[in-house]
Amino acid sequence: METTTRALVTGFEPFGDETLNPTAQIVSQIAACDWPGFDLQTAVLPVDTYVAPTRLRDLLARYEPHIVLLLGLARGRVALSLERVAINLLNFAGPDNAGNRIQDQPVIPGGPAAYFATLPVREIVERLRKEGIPTEVSYSAGTFLCNQVFYTALHWADQSRLDARVGFLHTPAAPAQVALGDRLAPSMALEMMLNGVRRILEMA
Amino acid sequence: METTTRALVTGFEPFGDETLNPTAQIVSQIAACDWPGFDLQTAVLPVDTYVAPTRLRDLLARYEPHIVLLLGLARGRVALSLERVAINLLNFAGPDNAGNRIQDQPVIPGGPAAYFATLPVREIVERLRKEGIPTEVSYSAGTFLCNQVFYTALHWADQSRLDARVGFLHTPAAPAQVALGDRLAPSMALEMMLNGVRRILEMA
Amino acid sequence: METTTRALVTGFEPFGDETLNPTAQIVSQIAACDWPGFDLQTAVLPVDTYVAPTRLRDLLARYEPHIVLLLGLARGRVALSLERVAINLLNFAGPDNAGNRIQDQPVIPGGPAAYFATLPVREIVERLRKEGIPTEVSYSAGTFLCNQVFYTALHWADQSRLDARVGFLHTPAAPAQVALGDRLAPSMALEMMLNGVRRILEMA
Amino acid sequence: METTTRALVTGFEPFGDETLNPTAQIVSQIAACDWPGFDLQTAVLPVDTYVAPTRLRDLLARYEPHIVLLLGLARGRVALSLERVAINLLNFAGPDNAGNRIQDQPVIPGGPAAYFATLPVREIVERLRKEGIPTEVSYSAGTFLCNQVFYTALHWADQSRLDARVGFLHTPAAPAQVALGDRLAPSMALEMMLNGVRRILEMA
Repeated sequence: METTTRALVTGFEPFGDETLNPTAQIVSQIAACDWPGFDLQTAVLPVDTYVAPTRLRDLLARYEPHIVLLLGLARGRVALSLERVAINLLNFAGPDNAGNRIQDQPVIPGGPAAYFATLPVREIVERLRKEGIPTEVSYSAGTFLCNQVFYTALHWADQSRLDARVGFLHTPAAPAQVALGDRLAPSMALEMMLNGVRRILEMA
Repeated sequence: METTTRALVTGFEPFGDETLNPTAQIVSQIAACDWPGFDLQTAVLPVDTYVAPTRLRDLLARYEPHIVLLLGLARGRVALSLERVAINLLNFAGPDNAGNRIQDQPVIPGGPAAYFATLPVREIVERLRKEGIPTEVSYSAGTFLCNQVFYTALHWADQSRLDARVGFLHTPAAPAQVALGDRLAPSMALEMMLNGVRRILEMA
Repeated sequence: METTTRALVTGFEPFGDETLNPTAQIVSQIAACDWPGFDLQTAVLPVDTYVAPTRLRDLLARYEPHIVLLLGLARGRVALSLERVAINLLNFAGPDNAGNRIQDQPVIPGGPAAYFATLPVREIVERLRKEGIPTEVSYSAGTFLCNQVFYTALHWADQSRLDARVGFLHTPAAPAQVALGDRLAPSMALEMMLNGVRRILEMA
Repeated sequence: METTTRALVTGFEPFGDETLNPTAQIVSQIAACDWPGFDLQTAVLPVDTYVAPTRLRDLLARYEPHIVLLLGLARGRVALSLERVAINLLNFAGPDNAGNRIQDQPVIPGGPAAYFATLPVREIVERLRKEGIPTEVSYSAGTFLCNQVFYTALHWADQSRLDARVGFLHTPAAPAQVALGDRLAPSMALEMMLNGVRRILEMA
């Protein structure tokens, strides 16, 4: 009798002039917890437009997860942002960590213009807010790697017909990276972000 | 042999359509801690332009504190903001909790245009940031009750010649009030705000 | 020999607590100009989630325009925002002018998740900026009526196979509505918005 | 019979990575207009913390103006901002155009903590808004050269007992500098800024 839920949670390494990325920290803390009833896999993806989706597709093919929760940093946001839609478009404001610059290219040539998240976005956001965690629905995951891996995972779920629940969560900056850096930005305590991610996995 | 530092820490009750005020919570938590070497007094001031300064002057006259740290909520700010200057001006965007509306009046008729904080603002901000707490120097405490009590305390320090160290700290919203309310805003964990206030008292 | 380009330009009536809508003013000024080589039709759509798409579909069916440029106000934006994508989702933060409240409904049941604009978005934005008009590409037209009519027009273009060029332009507030209202916001001179719209029509 | 009002209007040269400064353009257009009843002097000040106040004091001593209106650019502001207070503090976020970096120094050692503007700030702001020009009262002119020249002029007015009306107006960016630059920001048409400055001079 199969009762185990396979879940994949990913974050990203630091990018640009940031020296840390809270999503990598969340992923390592998630990996260190007990998850009864879950078979949990985690990964920290490189900020490289060619390597990241390849790594992600390998993980998806190997684990065939029921739940895919992708995390990314969005400096400037004030709350956890659960993304509603991934679009088939890449357009970088600056280079990724490997120096790649992409302008107006599809994530997957010939793919549909967009996929909607398959997590119950509205229910999750309302629940987290009731629990005191600032959270919002977002309707744009941008056109950088966050949107790219989100679209990639949703395309895999669509093509594989595995009925996986796929979501993307943007996080605010962590207090430490804001405090020690040159520019202020809204932040959220890592413990609260971690709490939010746990609750999303439980609800998904 | 006198070795005790008398300190007064105040917050405000909730105002406008806010149902809680993190500065009141910080003050009650500060009051519940042990403060070896300190004789610590705390108060939660009403958001009433006539009652608040009267209450504050009473407290100052009774305790003659060496350190005065006033706290106030500034929804929208992303970091702890240590104010540098209090100006002799009241101008309300809306009514206070007692319904008073003030436009273009001095805090204290005949007082100087402004006083600078007498806490070591720059040193405190740099220390807190090194400790991972997002903090900034602010050059405007507004023209509402926060500025009013700040000016009132600095005027008292100036007139009494007691050489007190007086400062005002604006805080971001607390996560819970943001999560449960209608409008998102940057927030900071109460524990981090509390930590910041403790360190300011130690450094002052 | 057919050399006339049929173009449809629409704006919206004021909505919510706004007393004017610059897109309605732009549309009436556009309509009053000479457009050699163009057969230009204009309309001001009501902010009613049931009436607006019906009116728009009527206009599209009657005129079969080669170019469709839809305009909408986005208070808070700092530049003309040419939208890149319309999503098949309605979710209102508040009621429309007829009191309708929609949560998590598709624009067109069974339609694809999204359509991309068929105007040359990047080229237009770069040209307008070179001409001194602050302009940006936007990747979210929201989930209110702006997104709804944009999706509706793109769906029509897709289904009708008429190869129309369809775009949506969000505008900042106009100076007068900001100056006279209670809340400040970025604004742009009507003349500059009008200029931008003219150039888009010429380039489309 | 003396009926001429002597007025001095100054702007600043471009600073930092900006290639133009709308206040310099406004000053040159103001200088090119007829001003019946006024003896109008204008100057564009260098963004040099040592040269700018020296130049300004020379102009004040030579012309003994009845009205002093100082202009400065504040990229990011959405409206004309008439400053209410100048503080006796310099603290630069970066170097001025001559490479000077100042931290926590007074504008004038021994001067009072602040001076209030001597223009009728509230009346002007309300009038301009009624005329459709987005305008606000600001309570912080910062701690860079704008605040420095504002404090310098108010100190001169106080010491000279000439009863001059002194004000400082911060302007948004001009559309062209936003459109052609890398970062978007709110902007205002030069004509509207110019109009605002004219009206301020007439009302002062």
